[in-house]
Amino acid sequence: MSSESQRMEKIVSLCKRRGFIFQADEIYGGLNGVWDYGPLGVELKRNLKDYWWRVMVRERDDVVGLDGAILTHRAALKASGHEDTFSDPMVDCRTCKVRLRADQLPEKNGVPQCPNCGGKDLTEARPFNLMFSTQMGASADPDSIAYLRPETAQSIFVQFKNVLDTSRKKLPFGIAQIGKAFRNEINPRNYIFRSREFEQMELEYFCRPEQGAELLEYWKNERLRFYENIGLPNEKLHVLTVPEADRAFYSKGTYDIEYDFPFGRQELEGVAYRTDYDLTQHQKASGKPLDYFDEETKQRFIPHVIEPSAGVDRTVLALLCEAFAEETVTDEKGKSETRTVLRFHPRIAPIKVGVFPLLKNQPALVEKARQVQALLRPLMNVFYDETGAIGRRYRRQDEAGTPFCLTIDFESLGERDAALRDTVTLRHRDSMEQERVAIAELPARLLLAIA
Amino acid sequence: MSSESQRMEKIVSLCKRRGFIFQADEIYGGLNGVWDYGPLGVELKRNLKDYWWRVMVRERDDVVGLDGAILTHRAALKASGHEDTFSDPMVDCRTCKVRLRADQLPEKNGVPQCPNCGGKDLTEARPFNLMFSTQMGASADPDSIAYLRPETAQSIFVQFKNVLDTSRKKLPFGIAQIGKAFRNEINPRNYIFRSREFEQMELEYFCRPEQGAELLEYWKNERLRFYENIGLPNEKLHVLTVPEADRAFYSKGTYDIEYDFPFGRQELEGVAYRTDYDLTQHQKASGKPLDYFDEETKQRFIPHVIEPSAGVDRTVLALLCEAFAEETVTDEKGKSETRTVLRFHPRIAPIKVGVFPLLKNQPALVEKARQVQALLRPLMNVFYDETGAIGRRYRRQDEAGTPFCLTIDFESLGERDAALRDTVTLRHRDSMEQERVAIAELPARLLLAIA
Repeated sequence: MSSESQRMEKIVSLCKRRGFIFQADEIYGGLNGVWDYGPLGVELKRNLKDYWWRVMVRERDDVVGLDGAILTHRAALKASGHEDTFSDPMVDCRTCKVRLRADQLPEKNGVPQCPNCGGKDLTEARPFNLMFSTQMGASADPDSIAYLRPETAQSIFVQFKNVLDTSRKKLPFGIAQIGKAFRNEINPRNYIFRSREFEQMELEYFCRPEQGAELLEYWKNERLRFYENIGLPNEKLHVLTVPEADRAFYSKGTYDIEYDFPFGRQELEGVAYRTDYDLTQHQKASGKPLDYFDEETKQRFIPHVIEPSAGVDRTVLALLCEAFAEETVTDEKGKSETRTVLRFHPRIAPIKVGVFPLLKNQPALVEKARQVQALLRPLMNVFYDETGAIGRRYRRQDEAGTPFCLTIDFESLGERDAALRDTVTLRHRDSMEQERVAIAELPARLLLAIA
Repeated sequence: MSSESQRMEKIVSLCKRRGFIFQADEIYGGLNGVWDYGPLGVELKRNLKDYWWRVMVRERDDVVGLDGAILTHRAALKASGHEDTFSDPMVDCRTCKVRLRADQLPEKNGVPQCPNCGGKDLTEARPFNLMFSTQMGASADPDSIAYLRPETAQSIFVQFKNVLDTSRKKLPFGIAQIGKAFRNEINPRNYIFRSREFEQMELEYFCRPEQGAELLEYWKNERLRFYENIGLPNEKLHVLTVPEADRAFYSKGTYDIEYDFPFGRQELEGVAYRTDYDLTQHQKASGKPLDYFDEETKQRFIPHVIEPSAGVDRTVLALLCEAFAEETVTDEKGKSETRTVLRFHPRIAPIKVGVFPLLKNQPALVEKARQVQALLRPLMNVFYDETGAIGRRYRRQDEAGTPFCLTIDFESLGERDAALRDTVTLRHRDSMEQERVAIAELPARLLLAIA
């Protein structure tokens, strides 16, 4: 096994053991390509999404939010092209009856073979639509088909006019959305990287046609900065200029922002210049005007759009892969051991600070520790722990990726040295260095570090 | 039309006009019982959910979070009882072919009639399951059926052991989740109150059997306090003790927390003592142990559970209904007009503060206003507006429910009175009173008000 696949196995194992990610319905044998986020995972994911929302929506004058439904009208996904063309080519093996991706068949002497039984008697390739469908309402006719959206983007286009009319925005402006999307992947793989249920963070940024090329560059750069700001280093991020032949026919340019995962270089986000394709399609199909009236030039036109589209789950996975480290350290007794640590950027770490009384059977220490917890809790996610040796408590927080730990000891009570009263030991996750800090200084100090 | 239904119509109209809520896929004729949240609605909903998460998870030592998948294994919803019993009785009208809820048929002389055509030739009632189903994977056999979860609760029960093992919690403790759920309601109604796609905020609080009765009371009271803390007054909240005959057979007690909507008194949240029913069902069906080992008593048992289960969308609707007001006010010229205002609690208001330069053609005013915006933006949701008369800008923010507005005027520049330099007019939404406040005091003052 390669060291990179060993590394991936260790990450998956840590995520299960520490409660970041579980397989969905595991006790029933699991649901292939579907995942649940546990107590640490849900906080990590929330921090990522909240940071995206903060910089993409709340800190900008030119972007507003939307939260569209998952259930989607068939006509909307007909107009967008998904019903007709959002498919993978599939073949059936006539020997063992298994269904396979036609574009992923192994070949022997140039002849495609079934990877399951080795058979060569395969059907012609047929398109298999990747959308999940369901029936809505009491009757079961074709009119009652609805889809689970395969991307969040379409509800932004469909609601473009409503948002424009109610928000009074002028071009250029964007509509942003975070939410779940669903694709019936035949071959879900690479843990949470390619799953059937996933979450997206998408911005549709509308502009005048002549602004499109420049804004494509602008958003590519903004999004690169975002990933650096959550702790993915520049040297592991790569911008792929998607060649014209690989782009959608309507696209005037697409960048893929890729990250070096242990399983290879893979896409985190696509930044696509989609021109006026989507709004035009929906205007045609619905018969409702989706154009923009420019009050200065008195012109009516359909805006162009730049779409930075990020995957929540694959970004979570990149954060986990980037953060994971194993080090050999020497303990107090001179014995060397392996330390497992998740070096999350403090901004996205699930727990910001651990608070420990040195001894749980000393009421004065426990009381002081509880006071520190109460002081910090309104400001950040705090974890209180009083069980086991301090060294073990540090290790547990290392594995959870907690950047700071505070130990309340007898010095904190001022028993030996009054000058140390109401100070604590602040221990740093990455350097393992410890320093003495006044309790009163903690809120400002820690808030700055996690902002 | 009754004044209450007029009131409801006005609320729905305001929500559309100001971008709180749109019908999903409206340009395609709409999707019945499915809604999209616009720019103001998404912020309102986020604030509600964030506050719930803060008080139910982050500020408690005894609750951890989970984010489970929507797609759910058929076996899990078989074990929970949903596949067999989560249904409404339906009849078909043989005359006009419409399908109807058997328990909602109008009667004439004691004979049920079709409300559509008045016909009396109806089929026998048959159960119609309310779960949305879909096919997962490439083949289309019964094994590939998956459901969209009808409630978030079941993934908490299914992951109980994983969360217990990884979080090291001791009883009593809870697992909390916010997420979407889906029910194929035959008759979605009352705007976003009963829709087919909705969001839940659920806590499953596990305890020893002997603690159940007391914790049911505890959580009922906690949840009532929650609603008061987001601005629903005590006198419009009602606790219904669900009679034993109306409870699930396994429940040892259920309270419904109800609110006086314009369309009647309706349930916001159920607080149910579900005993050990769910974990026992999943243990039996999966063959996996879902019990708890008490280290003190050395006993193994299946915990009991109290479930406070709140609806996000219906709480949003209650907040909108409670906040909506029309008043007759007199403008500067002595003309009386109707002021529409959403009196949201500042904690959940979508926009916390509007920032206005008195005149947009005065660069010094605009610059100072932009400084105030930049000062406050990292702390809260700020809306900058420079267009139209100040009175109109106030009215626009009244309709959006913004509790505070700041006007930067010539006094702010200190041109007439140096003592007023760097002060602004703080205008209060509800009283419409104005006061002079130093810019430096704004962050602390406003943060306290929205906390």
